[in-house]
Parts: sequence; structure tokens; C-alpha cells
Amino acid sequence: MEKATIIFQPSGQRGKISKGKNVLYAARELGENIESLCGGKGSCGKCKVLIAEGHFPKYGVTSHRKNLSRWQKTEANFINTTQKNKGLRLACCAVIKDDALVFVPEESRASKQIVSKRPRLIPVDYDPVVKKYDLIMDPPAAADARGDLERILSGLNVQYGLKDLGCDIDSLYSCDIDVLKHLPIRLRDQNWHVTVSVWMDREIIRILPGRMPDTYGISIDIGTTTVVASLVHLNSVRILDTQYIMNPQVKYGEDVISRINYHLQNKDGLRQMSMDIREALNSMIKALLRSTWPEDNNWTETAEKSDYPDVQKQREKTDDKFLCLVPEDIEDAIIVGNTIMHHILLQLDPRHVALSPFPPVVQKSLNIKARNLGIDICPSAYVHILPNEAGFVGADNVAVLTAEAPYKGDRIQLIIDIGTNGELVLGNRERLLSTSCATGPAFEGAEITHGMRAAPGAIERIAVDPETHEVMYKVVANDAWSNYVKTGELKTRGICGSGIMDILAEFYQTGIIDKSGAFQKKQKSPRYRVNPDTRLKEFVIAWAEETTIGRDITITQKDIRHIQLAKAAIYAGCKLLMREWGTDRIDVVKIAGGFGLHIDPVKMLIMGMIPDCDPEQIVPVGNAAGTGALITLLSREKRSESDWVARMVKYVDLASLPGFKDEFIEALQIPHKNDSFPHLKPIVSPKILFQE
Amino acid sequence: MEKATIIFQPSGQRGKISKGKNVLYAARELGENIESLCGGKGSCGKCKVLIAEGHFPKYGVTSHRKNLSRWQKTEANFINTTQKNKGLRLACCAVIKDDALVFVPEESRASKQIVSKRPRLIPVDYDPVVKKYDLIMDPPAAADARGDLERILSGLNVQYGLKDLGCDIDSLYSCDIDVLKHLPIRLRDQNWHVTVSVWMDREIIRILPGRMPDTYGISIDIGTTTVVASLVHLNSVRILDTQYIMNPQVKYGEDVISRINYHLQNKDGLRQMSMDIREALNSMIKALLRSTWPEDNNWTETAEKSDYPDVQKQREKTDDKFLCLVPEDIEDAIIVGNTIMHHILLQLDPRHVALSPFPPVVQKSLNIKARNLGIDICPSAYVHILPNEAGFVGADNVAVLTAEAPYKGDRIQLIIDIGTNGELVLGNRERLLSTSCATGPAFEGAEITHGMRAAPGAIERIAVDPETHEVMYKVVANDAWSNYVKTGELKTRGICGSGIMDILAEFYQTGIIDKSGAFQKKQKSPRYRVNPDTRLKEFVIAWAEETTIGRDITITQKDIRHIQLAKAAIYAGCKLLMREWGTDRIDVVKIAGGFGLHIDPVKMLIMGMIPDCDPEQIVPVGNAAGTGALITLLSREKRSESDWVARMVKYVDLASLPGFKDEFIEALQIPHKNDSFPHLKPIVSPKILFQE
Repeated sequence: MEKATIIFQPSGQRGKISKGKNVLYAARELGENIESLCGGKGSCGKCKVLIAEGHFPKYGVTSHRKNLSRWQKTEANFINTTQKNKGLRLACCAVIKDDALVFVPEESRASKQIVSKRPRLIPVDYDPVVKKYDLIMDPPAAADARGDLERILSGLNVQYGLKDLGCDIDSLYSCDIDVLKHLPIRLRDQNWHVTVSVWMDREIIRILPGRMPDTYGISIDIGTTTVVASLVHLNSVRILDTQYIMNPQVKYGEDVISRINYHLQNKDGLRQMSMDIREALNSMIKALLRSTWPEDNNWTETAEKSDYPDVQKQREKTDDKFLCLVPEDIEDAIIVGNTIMHHILLQLDPRHVALSPFPPVVQKSLNIKARNLGIDICPSAYVHILPNEAGFVGADNVAVLTAEAPYKGDRIQLIIDIGTNGELVLGNRERLLSTSCATGPAFEGAEITHGMRAAPGAIERIAVDPETHEVMYKVVANDAWSNYVKTGELKTRGICGSGIMDILAEFYQTGIIDKSGAFQKKQKSPRYRVNPDTRLKEFVIAWAEETTIGRDITITQKDIRHIQLAKAAIYAGCKLLMREWGTDRIDVVKIAGGFGLHIDPVKMLIMGMIPDCDPEQIVPVGNAAGTGALITLLSREKRSESDWVARMVKYVDLASLPGFKDEFIEALQIPHKNDSFPHLKPIVSPKILFQE
Repeated sequence: MEKATIIFQPSGQRGKISKGKNVLYAARELGENIESLCGGKGSCGKCKVLIAEGHFPKYGVTSHRKNLSRWQKTEANFINTTQKNKGLRLACCAVIKDDALVFVPEESRASKQIVSKRPRLIPVDYDPVVKKYDLIMDPPAAADARGDLERILSGLNVQYGLKDLGCDIDSLYSCDIDVLKHLPIRLRDQNWHVTVSVWMDREIIRILPGRMPDTYGISIDIGTTTVVASLVHLNSVRILDTQYIMNPQVKYGEDVISRINYHLQNKDGLRQMSMDIREALNSMIKALLRSTWPEDNNWTETAEKSDYPDVQKQREKTDDKFLCLVPEDIEDAIIVGNTIMHHILLQLDPRHVALSPFPPVVQKSLNIKARNLGIDICPSAYVHILPNEAGFVGADNVAVLTAEAPYKGDRIQLIIDIGTNGELVLGNRERLLSTSCATGPAFEGAEITHGMRAAPGAIERIAVDPETHEVMYKVVANDAWSNYVKTGELKTRGICGSGIMDILAEFYQTGIIDKSGAFQKKQKSPRYRVNPDTRLKEFVIAWAEETTIGRDITITQKDIRHIQLAKAAIYAGCKLLMREWGTDRIDVVKIAGGFGLHIDPVKMLIMGMIPDCDPEQIVPVGNAAGTGALITLLSREKRSESDWVARMVKYVDLASLPGFKDEFIEALQIPHKNDSFPHLKPIVSPKILFQE
């Protein structure tokens, strides 16, 4: 099949396309985004393109309208005579007969819809912060001996309208110094054809020889316990790989306060912890990159420290299906984390964040050169660190907000992110309030006698038979409930967060405990006992023979108190935020965190963790912080929205509000006495709910 | 004597001043710049100031108009009743009786006039790129728990109108990451009173506790042979110390071409040469800083790597008269150099600069973080590298132009900077042309049999008696001429550049050589001879017994040819530039370089190095590149002017012009045949000048 050269402008996408195919086909084949609602049937008129006339020596093509099939009647439905005379066509109607240079007007360009991994689809306009420009220049000549950089700046200006890079005052940042070092060789490698990566329209961060449109980025979420990093192919909005590791700072303490103490007690502590997390990030980045190389290839030697041309050769040798990415290929990065993780990474003294009135060192977002931060990606690239809202509400919460965008609608949303602290945001387009409640680590399994992390053998769901008070449970990574398997098969080891969340509601609904959280005096089941060693009242969830730990897994009266304190902190926080905001209803409750995915909304209401609302409107939103980080990697608008929302949210210090203690004490009850559960009535018997 | 606290705003300058002194005196004492043309006699009316009313808790003062002496009649000549009622006074008339807060309106602020070291005064408006802001803030409170940085940004905005640092989009660069690391401690050290250094109104590069208004910068001129660095106290426009060293790259070759060759022949050559110059710069910076410490103080241990507070303590211990500066105190730096020195420093591949059409990697000026460039000053500071004009005319020439500003007047100026290459610029406000002529290193003493650098023992002036052809000479660093001292006393060792420049004119005027540069057949003096070993004709300048080298110092026929080639290159370059520009006259000739200071204008005309012009208008301008570097350190306007002029100058490639060879061959004659020397007639006999 004979082929023709098709060039799309202004993107510079181009390639050989079989004659007989239409322009819309060519666009899809070459990765050009042209809008087409009807899918190429000529019925939506969205795929208007302009066919250029003339010879284009740079590309070695001559483009003519007659190089495309004749005008079709259906095109006249969308293109008037004046436009037709200018050369406008519908891409789906214009069949390729010979070479053509096709200009795609702004309104015909499709905005890519992107989807966050899970659980919810978040459409954003694809508009990355780092953009690549395909540039073909004339080589230097006696009459034009400008500098190499000046040649590129003028090309970007003339061909793409990037003016700010070139003019005197705004050009302070026009090109990174490392890029200049490679400039002469990369310009001349493919005969003055290069791909230029430009950050925020204002700084060149990389130049590659020839046409290299693929852009890669990473999004990183630094949790107190877990660090997650994803490698993303920005052009296709595809997550290539995700790595999870435990935050190495855990060795200095489980929670943020113990990390701050380590800093206060060790002169070099802050630098140590910062180095630890940087090393961890670099090992994750290495693993992400390695996933793009064939297994037998000793990539570290060839790729890690080498100059571009060597790696290029390596790639040419390698099988096509491997991308063989090197650190320099990662040209953008987003980091989110709570305020303390943020400060430790950047070696900012976090001590004042823990002291009233808890001022952080910095709230605004930061752009730090990767080489200055010590992160092994393209050294000229900027790492963007999302802003902190306040001392106890950090960039991770900003990411959650940017993903969920409660500020875009009228419905009053309550977003709950439960970790070691509970972070709450309440509001809508009018106003957003945030706060942090000291839940303690009960929901993470700490402080609970048999609490543990969500790992194999951890009980993640608990159900109690209302008649017999027999217990059924389910463990992580196994679909079977305990009553359907052989004793010991589940290798039960403890109870993780979501299992802990079931306890209050199950115990209360079945009458094992009363409204105050105390064990009822009369119990139906031998599972209830007073432990002869500890002298604590306790209830057995799993008998010793079902476990791998050789003893009964129980919930003690003390455990119940810890859970009550945690849930009361959240309930009181919600109530006070509602009062501050001036609303007595919540339209939607969103539970963020992997944790939230296993939560039963009805049980959350019954245990009295959130104020009364329609359980249908309690939705888990999964790793919303990760989603937020990802979308700020893909959308410049979302990135600036995150700056804006961090300022828009007003932080409320619960402890400073009048009535906090009263609300908190009332909230200890199961369920909260003021809630009437209109939505729950058909499900839960009022008799059980309101027994005294 | 009782004292009162006087505070000047908006600068924040303040201190205790004896009661009874006037406000103008206080201003001078405290370093506040108030305009005063009459010197405080009340007759110019320039020193208007506004006395604030009220209590200022931040400063702990209560300011009242009545805290100053009563209104004087003479003030009414310059201040009307409305202004008087607002509190306006003449600073020279208002005598201090008690505390006062004095606001200095913009029009009363004096712009400092600065003076380049030598030889010419260059007035520039003092407007440094790094400015210091005195800031007193309220500490965090429950109702205001903003981040530390946000508190500062809002202070800068409210108190000084620095808006760009604070808003979302333009705040990408608002604060350097290293500054954030020290932020909490420096803010709290003096109870929320800090001095903030802001670069280009857009980035905070340093924060110090308390009031620390002094700013220091360095200007560096990297020559192929010599490197010069000056430490400047910007506030007082005072050069504290200057260091000179030989460029350590000299070991790779004397001229730029041999440096490029070293790079081409050694894989690691570029990095090596770059490291050498960086190390040299750092050793110079260390020496400059050391000059501000007392001699017996082992400053390196305390200052070099220490955190701010330690150094502060050290300073408090030290005698007042020593500044005890540390690397962090240098907050601005300017680097100039020719294009090759520029490229090597930055590790930019210089090979293409030596190949037609000689494109540099970059022309525009660059701002590089000191820590990324590896220069040991304040790591967050920017090093500003002046732009290159073209491949062979570098940032050093831009500095010369910025200092001399030929583009500001109508007179046509020719600026000659003679080094290994001769750099010429011709023009006025209409147009500037530049070129580089291959003079070879003859004027630097190379290629000449007894040539040497300007060092003790080097002959720097030569005079020949027209009757006897006896020779008198003068050596570097000694005022006496050879005929006034005892034989051997001058310890003569060779001839340096300015001595070499005397030879053609002296030899020609006295008839030792003819118009073509050949020795006359008949000679009057036994100093002329044919060397029996080399068989070259030669003329003895100094007899062996006068020297420390044990043999006669001579000028050979070959030496004369080298000098002729060099001077002809410059002459032909001038002529061709004049033709390109379209002028047959030059109004002013400026000779740049330390070298130019010893040149006799008349001799330059006679030897035929520059086209005919009024010798009164041939002026030496000394180290104009150094002056240019210094003023771009002091004036933001001059810095942006340097960017502008680098683009305005059009580089002319002499070799590409028709008639270059003819001009060059004609220019070999002494003097040039077309010159009529109207100005020289009374001085030089036409008989001698035009003998055949």
C-alpha cells in the first residue's frame, strides 16, 4: 500500500499513512487528538481541520487541497463556503491521496478524559505542566551565527508562540544550566531537529534529538507509614507501574510526634530522616524505571549515570515492547504528604507544627529542582510539592480536596480522611472548613489489644449473630467468612482497622454492650468473660485454635473505650464544623483512604462516628490523595486549583471552640443521643437502637 | 548627651541620635540617604520628610511633631500650608528633641553616585538586584496560625508593596528552599524581627534575625590569563578588597584555542578546566572573606561551614573594625569573561565557537544558583553571568560596553580591547558594530623574542634618541628611566606589551626601520647588528650587563613583523568596521585594558594601529570590563542594559567582508599610507613621517 506523509500542526505529530485512509484515521494513528463525537460518521462536525497549501521544505512535503479526496456534501452541513475556500475540511471526510500538512484548530482538539485508578472517575483536561515541542531549525550560517539557545528560543517563539522564554526580563529562567551542557550535541545529532521540554511555559528543562514526544512523570504520596509512587505515561494518561514501601522513618517512631521528638533529641535527626525518605523515594524510582526494561538487562550500569547517546543506543538494541526509561526521562513529579512528612522531606524544622498555634514553616506549594532535592529523576526537572493547609492538615489533604473538588458544587460535603489523625473538611462552593481531630491510632490497630496492620491474617470484617452472639469474621486477602472454613485455615493473627470499625456497631446492635460502651451485665455467650490475668472484661472474637498466635483474640473493655474515644473525636469534630459552617445537614459524606473501602456506612452511623445522614450518600473514595497527586501531574489547571483551595480552606482549631468538651463527651455514646436515624429505621430496630 | 530614637521609613534604618542634632544629621549617621544639594543650609528644599504621629509598639517609640524643634520660616519657602499640616518638614531644619519616626518620601531619597575604581567616574543609580527589607511581624496566634513563610510574604507585601512574591502564579520562585530550612530559628531568634534579602523582587534568598542591612557582592572577571575578583560593600559602594590570580587553565594552553583543543583531546578535559577555574574562584573568595577577619583568627574553622548563629557569636566576640564576613554574606555575584572562558566555566562545549560560523552555546545572560555553579557564596544566591555578543566577542566586551555606554551618545566611538584577540566596537546610539581581529599574542609579549608579561623587570616604555639611536627605557614598578640609574639596577628581564607597542613608532620616527618595517641598510648605532647565531637582523634594547638574564635584550626583524601583523589586524578591522558602519571619521577612541593606560596615543597613530583621529580623543579607560561588572552589581538598570546591548551590537565577521585582505596588507605599512595626520603635524616632522 502506498503511503503519504501527514503532518499535524501545531503539535508537530507526523508519520506515513496509507493512501485511502481519512485524516481522522491518520490523527488516531499518529497520536493527534481530534474531537469526534460521532466516531467519524460525518454527523457531529467536530473534526474540522485546515489543509495547508504550499511546499514545506523543513518537512520535505508539498501539501495541496487536491492531495485529499473531493469535497463531500455532508461537510457542507458544518462548513460554510468562506471556510471551505480557506481550506477547511472534516477530518473524517477527507481521504488521503498524497502528502498533506493539516492544521488542527483549537476547537477541534480533543481534551483527554482521564480516570484515576480507583475507585472513582475524575475527568480532567489533559494539560501537563511539562510540554514537549517538536522543533526543526535551520543550522547556523555566516549570516545567522546566533547562539544555540537563541536559535531554540526563537523557534519556540515563532513556531509555538512561546514568547516569555525569549524576552529579556522574563527570560531569567529560560533554560536550565544542565540542558545547556548537552545542547550542542543534541542539536546536531539529528541535524537541528529536536524535542524541547518546557516547564510552565517558562523554562526549558530538557532537549532531546529528533522527535521524542513521550513524557513521563511520577506522583508520590508520603504517608507516615506507607509511601506510594506511580510512574505515569503522561501522553496516554496510563499508570505504568506503582510501588509501595513502608516509610523507613518508622524506625524512629510510628507517629508524627515521635518523629518530631527524634529530631528534637538528635542533632542530626532531621537530616537523617530526610535522607532516609529520599533514599526510599530513589529506590522506588529505580524500581519503577526497572519495570520498563527487559529483565535480563543490567540496566543500572547502562542507564543510571550515562549520558543520553549511550542510552539511546541501548534502547535501539532493546526489544520494542520495553520502554527502557532512564532517570532523565521522568520530567515531572508531584509529592504530597502530611505537614510533618512534608517538613521532614525538605529538612524544615517541624517542631513548631506540634506546638500551639501550630504554624508550619511554609504553606504554599513549592517547586524544587530535582537535583536540589536529591531525587533521581531528570535533574533539571521541578518536583512540585503540594501546599499545606495548616499545621495539622497537610498537602495530602489538599490532594484529597483537589480530587474531590467539594468547592465546585452546592451540595455540602463532609470529607473524612482517617489515619493517625482524622482530617475533616466540610463545605461546598461557598466555603470550606477543615480540622484535624486527635483520634489516636486506634483505627490503625494501635492501642487495641489485638490490633494490627491490614496484612494477611488480619480480621477486616466482624459480624455477630444477634441471637447466639456467635462471631463470624473475614481476614484480609481471603473472601471466605470464618464460619465457612476449617478451624485454623484463616491463620488469624489480629484485628485491623476496618475490623475494629465493625465492633461498636455489632456489639451495640446485638446488645453485647450498652449505649455507654460498657459490657451488659447479662451476656448470652461464653465468649464474654473477665480475663483472670488482666482482670479486664473481654469478648472473644477468635478462639486460640483459629489463630496462629496460640491464644484467644479478644476485645477488652479498654479496647472499646479507645474506639469510643476515636469515634467521638470524629463525631464531635463533624458537629463542631457543622456549627461553625452554619448547617445542620450534610448532603454527602466521603470516606478517603484505602480503609474507607471496607467500611459499612450503616455501621458508621450506628456506632455514632458521623452525624445522621442518608447512608446511600456515604461513599468511599479510596486513595483520594493519590488521585489528587495524579491529576495535578496531568493538569496545570488542577495544580493551580490546589494552590487556590489550600488558601480557601479555613482551618478550625477544635480545642479553641467553646463547647468542644461537651460535644466530645456526648459523642462517646453509641449512637449519639441526638441522632434519629430516619434512614435507618427500616433496617435497624428502634428497640435495639434506643434501649436504655 | 541625652539621646532619642530616630526611625526612618520605609527603609527601617534606625538608631539613637543625640538630642539637638537635626534630622539630616541623623540620616547621615544612620546610613539613610536623603537628598540635600545645599548641604543642609535650608536653601535647596530637597530634604523634605514627614514626621509620623502616634505610638509605634513595634519599635517601642511614640513619635510626635512636637518631638522636633519648631517650624522655621525658611521651611515655608519649600513647604506649603497643606503639606505643613500633614507634618512635612525640611530634615535640615527639624532639630531632634525626642523620639521620632520619620518617613522619607521617594523624591527626597538620594540616589548614590558610584565611581569605578579607575580611571573614570561612572555614575549609576544605586539600585542593587538584591535588596534587604527590615521586617517586624506579629508572632503566630490561635487566630493567625499561618506558615512562617506566609507571614513574611504578607509582611513584604503590606509593608513594602512586594506583591509578586505572594500571589499564586508568580510565586513559583518566592523563596529558596535553603532559606526555608533556617526560617523558624531565624524568625524566632530576635522575636519576629528579621532582615529579608530579596532577589529581583521575586525570590527570598536569605533571612537573618534582627536588623542586618549590609549587603555584599563580588564581581569577577575571568580572563584567559588573569582572573580578578572584587568584594564590594554594596550599601556604601565600597570595594573592600580585590584579588588577582593567574587563570589555572593556563597549564592547558596560553590561548583559548589551545583550551578548546585540550577539551577535544581529553574526555574529561572540559570538566577538569571548569573545576580548575571554580576552585580558583573559591580560593579567591576565601581570600576576600579572610581580609575581613582579624589576622590571628582561625576563621576557616568557625566561618566556612558553620551555621549562622555560631558565626554571629564569633562576630560579637570580634573587634568592631572587622566585618568577619562568611560565605553566606555574599548575596550577589557577577561574572564576565570571553565566550570561551564563559563556556568552560559552565561546562558548555566550546568547540563550535571555534568553527565557522562560530555559534556560541548561549548568548543571553544567565542566573545560576551559586550552589549549582559550585561557587562558595550564599548558596541560595544567584550568580549573574553577563551575555555573550557572539562567538568571539564575549561577556567581557559586554561589560566594557555597559561601562562605556557608547550607545547613549551621538559621538561615534571606537572601543578597542586588546588581549590575545583584539575586540573592536564602533558606533553610537544609532548602531553598534563589533568584531574580533586575530592580532595574535604579540601585544601580550608572546611570539616576541624577549617578550614577557608585565612583571618586575619588564620594559614598559622605550624611547630612542633620534640623533644617536641610543635607547632609554623604563621597567614595570619603577619610575626611573634607564639612563638615570646605575647599570643593572633595573634588573631588566624582557619587554612587556606596552614596551612592544612603543617599538614601531620609535624605530620608524628615528629612521631605524623604514615604512615597510625593514631595518634601514644604513644604521647609526652599534645596537644594530646581524646576530651571528640566528642570522637575524636585530637591534639591542638593553645590553647584557643591564639585565638579569645575562644576554642582550633585542628586537629582531621577525619581532617587528609580528608586531606589524598584530597592528595591521587592528587597523584593518577598524577600517572595515568604519566602512560597514558608513562613517569616515571617529570621534573618540577608547583603549580598554590595564595595558591601555601606558599607551601613547601619538605613537598609536604613528605606528598605524588606529585610523587617523585627534590624539586628544584617544583615551585609556583602564579595566573597563571590571568596571562594567561592578556597575551591573550595583544597578539593576545597568544589568538589564547589558542584556539589551548584547543584542543591539551586530557582530561583523571580518573574514567574510570583501576587501579584507587588501586592507590588511595595506595596513602593514608604518604609518598607513592613507593617513595624513593633520593633528600630528606640529609634533612630528613630515620629513620623517613620509620618507620613502
